[in-house]
Amino acid sequence: MTLDELETPAPVVDLARMERNLDRMAAYSTAHGLALRPHIKTHKTPWLAAEQLRRGAVGVTCATPREAEVMSEVADDILIAYPMVGSVKARRVVALPTAVRLTVALDSARAADDLADAAHEAGRRIGVLVECDMGMRRVGVQSAEDAVTLVRHVWGRRELEYVGIAFYPGHVREPLDRQDEALSALGERLGRTLDALKRARLDPRVVSGGSTPTAVRTHEIPGVTEMRPGTYIYNDRTTAAIGACTFDDCALTVLATVVSTAVPGQAVIDAGTKSLGREPMRGAEGEGFGVIYGRDDVVVRAMSEEHGLLDLSRSDWRPAVGDRVRVIPNHVCIVVHLFDTVHGFRGNAVETSWAVAARGRAAQVDVLG
Amino acid sequence: MTLDELETPAPVVDLARMERNLDRMAAYSTAHGLALRPHIKTHKTPWLAAEQLRRGAVGVTCATPREAEVMSEVADDILIAYPMVGSVKARRVVALPTAVRLTVALDSARAADDLADAAHEAGRRIGVLVECDMGMRRVGVQSAEDAVTLVRHVWGRRELEYVGIAFYPGHVREPLDRQDEALSALGERLGRTLDALKRARLDPRVVSGGSTPTAVRTHEIPGVTEMRPGTYIYNDRTTAAIGACTFDDCALTVLATVVSTAVPGQAVIDAGTKSLGREPMRGAEGEGFGVIYGRDDVVVRAMSEEHGLLDLSRSDWRPAVGDRVRVIPNHVCIVVHLFDTVHGFRGNAVETSWAVAARGRAAQVDVLG
Repeated sequence: MTLDELETPAPVVDLARMERNLDRMAAYSTAHGLALRPHIKTHKTPWLAAEQLRRGAVGVTCATPREAEVMSEVADDILIAYPMVGSVKARRVVALPTAVRLTVALDSARAADDLADAAHEAGRRIGVLVECDMGMRRVGVQSAEDAVTLVRHVWGRRELEYVGIAFYPGHVREPLDRQDEALSALGERLGRTLDALKRARLDPRVVSGGSTPTAVRTHEIPGVTEMRPGTYIYNDRTTAAIGACTFDDCALTVLATVVSTAVPGQAVIDAGTKSLGREPMRGAEGEGFGVIYGRDDVVVRAMSEEHGLLDLSRSDWRPAVGDRVRVIPNHVCIVVHLFDTVHGFRGNAVETSWAVAARGRAAQVDVLG
Repeated sequence: MTLDELETPAPVVDLARMERNLDRMAAYSTAHGLALRPHIKTHKTPWLAAEQLRRGAVGVTCATPREAEVMSEVADDILIAYPMVGSVKARRVVALPTAVRLTVALDSARAADDLADAAHEAGRRIGVLVECDMGMRRVGVQSAEDAVTLVRHVWGRRELEYVGIAFYPGHVREPLDRQDEALSALGERLGRTLDALKRARLDPRVVSGGSTPTAVRTHEIPGVTEMRPGTYIYNDRTTAAIGACTFDDCALTVLATVVSTAVPGQAVIDAGTKSLGREPMRGAEGEGFGVIYGRDDVVVRAMSEEHGLLDLSRSDWRPAVGDRVRVIPNHVCIVVHLFDTVHGFRGNAVETSWAVAARGRAAQVDVLG
């Protein structure tokens, strides 16, 4: 089958680019002695996690119970970088296969207690990373003292094993060469936390950080032992715009068909918010919700659920109904979550297709049983 | 099971509210002699389409091949209000069960030809509505003359049956009592098209319009015979804000759990862009991406993929980790598309759960086979 024969809209992955992205991040982490624990929220697919593990990843990072369940097919070391609050969720994750070394990141005594109670019932120990806010202001304990307090709380629950601390530098989205100030502030704040833990004789074994935008500068942050980038497997328009990859590294695009050219100045494709998401550019300039592959001057200016409106005002290209395009999406993680199937191609040949097996929320038994 | 026992995030539907919404729109269309053809993109669920048909809907409206396939389980009259451009898509929809009366809306000769070619192969006739732009500037032929030209083209293909014209008043989003000017302009434009078709002896049998924001004013637009609202079954924050329903008519909310209160001034819930979408308010004031049910002063201010940040700055409510909330989303159609299962409740009891069977793109045979 060729790309021309696929029904649109469809996410398609340039396999050579994807492999290059995987190889490059594996080489970086190896070169700097950093543990690589990719976040699989970007691809949600076991065989891609296996490709990451085969290249040396120490385990995977997940955000949801379903992601952890599906990844347990291929990974024996899983970090859920999300607090499992409430007995329903906590019980679900402690029921993962016992062969899986499971760690959970959390920032509250309540989340620790829910996890410990469930672990107690299941007769199992679960690792814990204490989540620390390093400037993003989303989650994470706010001070070095709060970190020590929560680590002591975790230490007090015998079902939990204190493994270390985690942070997510999601606020650092400047272009790579302008991250100095933000990374320096982050390093100082992290240093204070590490000092306080050391004074309390609670040195972390693991200090887990790292995102795709900051990935290749992770080794410059003193104390970090592990990185958790996700987007790098596919990359997207935002990642390219901030310089954390080039446009030639964008492996996933959304194949779409021009379905209307009736309104002057625009063309309408069959990829709207239900295919692309409504994600703005963040940390870099750029209008619209995606850019046409090979036509930098044409962006998806507006969308309805199944319509994407291409702005032709800066281009002399005049597509016809039936023409096909590929959209480089602003935020690839959202696109993957919107589809059930992704296609992999080389040249014009569709070489393979795979299920986005970890999307959704269902317990695997609900799907299989 | 009670709401408290559901794992979060989860979309939950107040069944009494939903039934009232369905009854009300059915009563309106009956009172005004308008055919009601609900757009099922909002719920994507056969049994809900059956509830709409049982209340007198003449058929359903779909946007994608999968929606049409799944709805053919319960509906024998389906309008695909979207051009099926390209042989792959056109062949897929002409393969729908022959007992289904199928109509497609389109705005180009190319879309008509693709459909006619596929219908010819399949030995079947397909109805066509010519899509006319009545001011939204998304799709649709631009003038009365272009409408006549395209209707003649459809007329010339024996596999196609010219049924009428369609438009979508998606640009009319003012509050109900401020729509006079927009509806008047729309009526004039529609009048010119109907006059031109009449002069050409191409009177449409069906004139299909109507959205949820304009629904109860549809009878004021001269010539319209059919309405296609979708959102009204559930309603959402936007629909309430523009006055097309009240907040008490919002039937679907997203049940979520507070997972972090570490950062002062906010609480974080486990519903982010992968549960709520990143849909702004349109046509009405309103910050954020959803509002907490029962707490009008708390909105979802910002999101990550699995995190929703509640702004507590205008509220004296201070939730604890583990507390549960329900979010009235800005745009419910996107929320439904993000989940595989929806739960229906009365009081605190979860009475039923159903699959969002028509979400995704897969051919049904791929799922069942």
